[in-house]
Amino acid sequence: MLKAIQIRGCVTLRCWSLKQSLSFISISSSFNSKPFSSFSPIPYPSIDSSTPRPRRLRFTPFHASSSPPPPPLLHSAGVRNIKFCQWCGGPTKHDIPDGEEKLRAICTLCGKIAYQNPKMVVGCLIDHDNKVLLCKRNIQPSHGLWTLPAGYLEIGESAVEGAIRETREEANADVEVISPFAQLDIPLIGQTYMIFLAKLKTPHFSPGPESSECQLFPVDEIPINSLSFSSMVVTLSLYVEDVKAGKPKFHYGIINKRPGTSPSDIHAYTLDHHMHL
Amino acid sequence: MLKAIQIRGCVTLRCWSLKQSLSFISISSSFNSKPFSSFSPIPYPSIDSSTPRPRRLRFTPFHASSSPPPPPLLHSAGVRNIKFCQWCGGPTKHDIPDGEEKLRAICTLCGKIAYQNPKMVVGCLIDHDNKVLLCKRNIQPSHGLWTLPAGYLEIGESAVEGAIRETREEANADVEVISPFAQLDIPLIGQTYMIFLAKLKTPHFSPGPESSECQLFPVDEIPINSLSFSSMVVTLSLYVEDVKAGKPKFHYGIINKRPGTSPSDIHAYTLDHHMHL
Repeated sequence: MLKAIQIRGCVTLRCWSLKQSLSFISISSSFNSKPFSSFSPIPYPSIDSSTPRPRRLRFTPFHASSSPPPPPLLHSAGVRNIKFCQWCGGPTKHDIPDGEEKLRAICTLCGKIAYQNPKMVVGCLIDHDNKVLLCKRNIQPSHGLWTLPAGYLEIGESAVEGAIRETREEANADVEVISPFAQLDIPLIGQTYMIFLAKLKTPHFSPGPESSECQLFPVDEIPINSLSFSSMVVTLSLYVEDVKAGKPKFHYGIINKRPGTSPSDIHAYTLDHHMHL
Repeated sequence: MLKAIQIRGCVTLRCWSLKQSLSFISISSSFNSKPFSSFSPIPYPSIDSSTPRPRRLRFTPFHASSSPPPPPLLHSAGVRNIKFCQWCGGPTKHDIPDGEEKLRAICTLCGKIAYQNPKMVVGCLIDHDNKVLLCKRNIQPSHGLWTLPAGYLEIGESAVEGAIRETREEANADVEVISPFAQLDIPLIGQTYMIFLAKLKTPHFSPGPESSECQLFPVDEIPINSLSFSSMVVTLSLYVEDVKAGKPKFHYGIINKRPGTSPSDIHAYTLDHHMHL
C-alpha cells in the first residue's frame, strides 16, 4: 500500500526518457580507495538508436560542511501540525528542547516529545524472462500511472518482508527476493525507498485492489514517461543501465526534488551522491 | 543522537566473541542466478589463534508464504499507546480500518489514522589507518559501552547526511562517506540500521556530549563483548570478515531478537536472510 507519496515539490531539471536513449552521468565511488568526491561520467546505455542526450546530475561531495540543513518548511510544517500529545491528550508547544537543535512538538502536560522521522518505502523489482513487472495504480496519487509494487514498511516487519507483502497485495504475485538493488532517499518528502530484485515463484500475477493492471514490460519498452513517481524513474533507469552493462549493482542515491515545482513532473529531479557497488 | 534503541528482547542463541575467533555461517546470494534460498557456509576469519566455533544463523527462504506476521505484542502495544489524535486532540479507538488488515489508532472525531512506521538509524564505520573509530556511550541505554557513531535519521535529511551529522555530534569528527556498508533490520523493535563506510577528512576526533571517550581500535582488538547493541556486533563482525577477506561488501540482513530474553545480552540474536554483494 502506498497511498500518499511524493506529493510535494519537483525540480525543473530536464531529463530524457529511456525511449529517447538517455545519457546518464553516474557519480561513482570506487570501493575503499577513491571516494565519490571524484566522479566519472558513465554513458547511459542506448535503448534505441536515437542520439544519446545528457542528463545533468548535481554533484555535492559528502562531507560535514556541505551537509545542507533540513528544508525548514517541511520540518517546521510537520512539527507545527502536531497540536496535541498522542499519549496524554495535552496541548503541545513548539520549541527547541534543551540539548537539541531542532524544533519539536513538546507536550505541555507530560513533557513528552513527538519526534518525526522519515518513512521507508519498500518494493520489488521483478525480472521475469527479461521483462519487468509493473502495476498501474488504481489509487491516488498518480492514478493510472505505472509503478513497481511498493509501499510503506510496517512496524514489526523487515524491509524484505514488507516488499514481499506489498507485491502480494498489489500484484497478487508470490516472489522470492534475490538481492538488495537500491536505496534512494527523498529528503524533501521524508521518504527512503528500498528496492529489492526479486523473481516470481510461479508465473502468476493479477491486479490487487490498488492496481488496475499488472503487466510485464521488456526493459526497452518500460513506459518511462508514464511512471508514477521520480523514484520509479530513477530505479528503472538504473536497472536498465545495469542490465545493458550485464551486471546489476547495489545503488545508493538522493533524489532531490525542489519545492515549488510541479509534483506531477516525474522527470524533474537531480540524483545526487550516487554510489554503487 | 541515539537515546533509546534496542530496549526489547533478545534471543538465546549463543555466539562467540571476535576474540574467540568466530566461525560465521553466512547465507549468501549469488547475483541474479541462484537466490539466497541456497546458502553456503563461509568461515569467519580467525581473529586470533584459538579454534573457530560455530555460530548458528537461522535461515528462512524469502517467499510470501514464509513471511512471518508482525509480532502482535509490539505492534498492538504501540498502537494502543496512542490514545489521542495529535492533530485534533480527539480520543482514538483501536480498530482495523476498512480495506486494511492491521490494528490502527483511529481518531473518533476527525477520523484520521495514526500510522506507525519503523525508524531508520544511520551511522558511520570509519576506518583510519586500519583502525575503527568507536565511541563510548555517555547516555543510556548501554551507558559505558562502545558504539559506532549512529543515531536516528531526521526528517529532511538523507541517510548519508544523517550519518555525517551523527558522527560530528558524537565524535566531533569530520568525515567523508565512501560507500554504503550494511542495512540491518530489527523488526522486533521497529528499527533499520543503515551504516556507511567513511574516512576521516582530518585526523581529529573527540567525544561529543553523548560520548565519554572516542578511540581507534585495530580490527583485531575491537571490544566485541563491550559493544552497546547487537547491531554493532553484527556490523563490526561483518566488517572484520570483509577486511580479512580483502574486500568490503554491502550487506543486508535481519537481526531477530526474541522477546523475553535479556536486552543486555548483545550476542543473543540470529542474523537471518543475510545477503551481500
